[in-house]
Amino acid sequence: MSHASPDRTRRLHLGVFLDGAGHYSSAWRHPASPTDRFFQLDYYKQLASTAERGKFDMVFFSDRYGIPDRYGDHFRATVRSLHSAHLDPFTLIAALAGVTEKVGLAATVSTSFSEPFHVARQFASLDWLSGGRTAWNIVTSTSDNEARNFGEDHIPDHDVRYERAKEYVTVANGLWDSWEADAFVFDKEAGIYANADKIRYLHHRGRHFAVRGPLDVPRSPQGRPVLVQAGSSDTGRDFAAHAAEVIFTAQPSLEGARTFYADMKTRAAAYDRSADSIKVMPGLMPIVGETEAEARDTEALLAEYADPIAGLAILSDQINYDLSVHPLDGPVPELHDVTGMQSRLKLIAKLVKSDALTLRQLGKFYGGSRLHRKVVGSPTQIADFMQDWFAAGACDGFNLMPPYLPDGLDKFVELVVPELQNRGLIRTEYEGCTLREHLGLPWPAGRPRF
Amino acid sequence: MSHASPDRTRRLHLGVFLDGAGHYSSAWRHPASPTDRFFQLDYYKQLASTAERGKFDMVFFSDRYGIPDRYGDHFRATVRSLHSAHLDPFTLIAALAGVTEKVGLAATVSTSFSEPFHVARQFASLDWLSGGRTAWNIVTSTSDNEARNFGEDHIPDHDVRYERAKEYVTVANGLWDSWEADAFVFDKEAGIYANADKIRYLHHRGRHFAVRGPLDVPRSPQGRPVLVQAGSSDTGRDFAAHAAEVIFTAQPSLEGARTFYADMKTRAAAYDRSADSIKVMPGLMPIVGETEAEARDTEALLAEYADPIAGLAILSDQINYDLSVHPLDGPVPELHDVTGMQSRLKLIAKLVKSDALTLRQLGKFYGGSRLHRKVVGSPTQIADFMQDWFAAGACDGFNLMPPYLPDGLDKFVELVVPELQNRGLIRTEYEGCTLREHLGLPWPAGRPRF
Repeated sequence: MSHASPDRTRRLHLGVFLDGAGHYSSAWRHPASPTDRFFQLDYYKQLASTAERGKFDMVFFSDRYGIPDRYGDHFRATVRSLHSAHLDPFTLIAALAGVTEKVGLAATVSTSFSEPFHVARQFASLDWLSGGRTAWNIVTSTSDNEARNFGEDHIPDHDVRYERAKEYVTVANGLWDSWEADAFVFDKEAGIYANADKIRYLHHRGRHFAVRGPLDVPRSPQGRPVLVQAGSSDTGRDFAAHAAEVIFTAQPSLEGARTFYADMKTRAAAYDRSADSIKVMPGLMPIVGETEAEARDTEALLAEYADPIAGLAILSDQINYDLSVHPLDGPVPELHDVTGMQSRLKLIAKLVKSDALTLRQLGKFYGGSRLHRKVVGSPTQIADFMQDWFAAGACDGFNLMPPYLPDGLDKFVELVVPELQNRGLIRTEYEGCTLREHLGLPWPAGRPRF
Repeated sequence: MSHASPDRTRRLHLGVFLDGAGHYSSAWRHPASPTDRFFQLDYYKQLASTAERGKFDMVFFSDRYGIPDRYGDHFRATVRSLHSAHLDPFTLIAALAGVTEKVGLAATVSTSFSEPFHVARQFASLDWLSGGRTAWNIVTSTSDNEARNFGEDHIPDHDVRYERAKEYVTVANGLWDSWEADAFVFDKEAGIYANADKIRYLHHRGRHFAVRGPLDVPRSPQGRPVLVQAGSSDTGRDFAAHAAEVIFTAQPSLEGARTFYADMKTRAAAYDRSADSIKVMPGLMPIVGETEAEARDTEALLAEYADPIAGLAILSDQINYDLSVHPLDGPVPELHDVTGMQSRLKLIAKLVKSDALTLRQLGKFYGGSRLHRKVVGSPTQIADFMQDWFAAGACDGFNLMPPYLPDGLDKFVELVVPELQNRGLIRTEYEGCTLREHLGLPWPAGRPRF
């Protein structure tokens, strides 16, 4: 595989984390935000085409099942001020498969409320239909509110969720591997369609699932979709080191990012995986201007529009704790016994300790980039930042989180991409067709013959 | 709605039931069958575009979860001689949304192994992305082999499956209705995204599901996707009369079709539904030639290639009974105590009684059109047949099942469609944009404002 060859300059991998409005909590209020297009395919086609123009590795969609409603115990606060309705991300990347050419298509699906047979089958199907461009971002879900759409009152415990996720991915991998790449015969004269000896039952019987298999979808162009994971707790990291090929993570500081990066590569080695076979891509919110001043103006506008309650509504949902019971202008309460996103909690505790924030300030701040690293500046400044992190061993690339859309992405592709290309940090043309090729990832077993 | 206006000629509705190869069990062996394209989006795009050229109401994809393996207790017989691998149909219609303009997109999803929140959400999302062209064909699954991919050894009893299906659809309808059509505000200055008073919790707690809602997808262009159902047993008919808008059914005889049609309209009336709000569309395999002789040659070729074991493998799976234990050239055994497709069993019993078939003959015959009506002839003969059934009150249209693809569909659209158009039986141009408009179906509640 050309990407892994030693004579080639190591390159930054770029994804863009899309949602209708963009990632700043007030994104939809930006004058250029096309609120009437948030549910139209044409809009996402435009965004994905922009990513393709920038020769990105992939577009990426997160997911949650339901409207956050922990804050004030109702969805009122969320729907009032946040872009809180979303399309199912898998459906969205499936629709994008036909209207894009090269860019990878990553969608999030939780392992906590679905059956591995369905999910393995949908991804294998889409891997065919997209010509090998799919990725599955594996999450375990964190909020009670989601569990309530699936017959449960509370989200299962962190360790139970990961135990289930691990078995779930084992089943999915088994199903994808149930067809050898050369199982088809297609002998019309003799009437032989496929070779049954190259298709296998799975006979999986575990604690959470019993799945006989085989899949009824033949081995897909990538063998398996690319597996992405975003868990940053100890259990999450171990799971990712074992099962994932791309790690998405929130890393506010260079120091923290380097530590995380080294830790992930070490953990991967413990599973006999090469450092190259697992790509660490922290979230990065680039606020780009032609000049630093222009970028700062953009941020000021978004910050002015940001409703602190929107940020607190997101956070309350992620930690399953109703922050509305505390006065907005009082201190941030201690958050020791809450459930949900463990690693996010640790980052918040650190932040609150160092900055002595009020709840209102935390809400405003959290609604900015949800503790993902933000960088505000000119194209050169942003390229410098990315190059520094890359050179310092803090990442293999970034999952970009444009503050608002489509302009925040357009500006990045028009202004920052040429700068990164000039420095030889990113590709100027796609060299392969599949997402595995874009990312330089190993190929699981054989390739099918189509 | 123009389609329902009384001054308009009543028209035949046309769907085409697609699968990679076509419906004759030997379809993939036809010299023109493109076996190397069965898993490519480009192929399905071509098929759907042909349907669009014929101004069809919809393309339709069935589903099953796994490779049939009841015959001989292994998938060997199936994969040897049948086109037995398939793409997930929902993923396929999602990918088709971006590469088609007008044609409706119907996919099958079973209610027996999935969560209504996921399925309602995927269809609502696709209804947005397709501009209101989606339909959900609701099935309950019939084979033990499918259950074994979801932790069960046997398919639940017929009545339990339908009880679950009924509750499932109630939940899905509730979720689709959880957003009023005018819930969005999008007031950028005041910072008001949506009106919480126009979004509702569902608070469903039933025997099979507990779903709080609301959906996180706003009310979609069609309000709800079009609901299709294919159950033909007494329970199935009652469920369809209550919940479905399009009925797909296997009707070998005109007499049987008329009785079924009248029964469905009567049952619908008992639920206070108008006769127009439920469209009965039997399956129809048209084997078209420029002349009758050419059509008969095509059938002879497909029949020559047909492996009787392929037909028996399909049937064994549908009735959960291994027909391989009986001699191929002996009589068809009594099939009283088997589970699975009840209405199909009755049709077979009738057929065997009147024709005294051997098992080999049954396999060959069943692999032809699976007891759906077949009509072989010139364009005029096929148009005559369709007109007769329509005029006789046997149907509101047909779900066409081309014997092989893409030629079987191409021939129908090139030769039969102009004939039907000349007779004023089908449209010459699309008059609406959504599948509801194509079918002339009522609109559930208000339309969203985009």
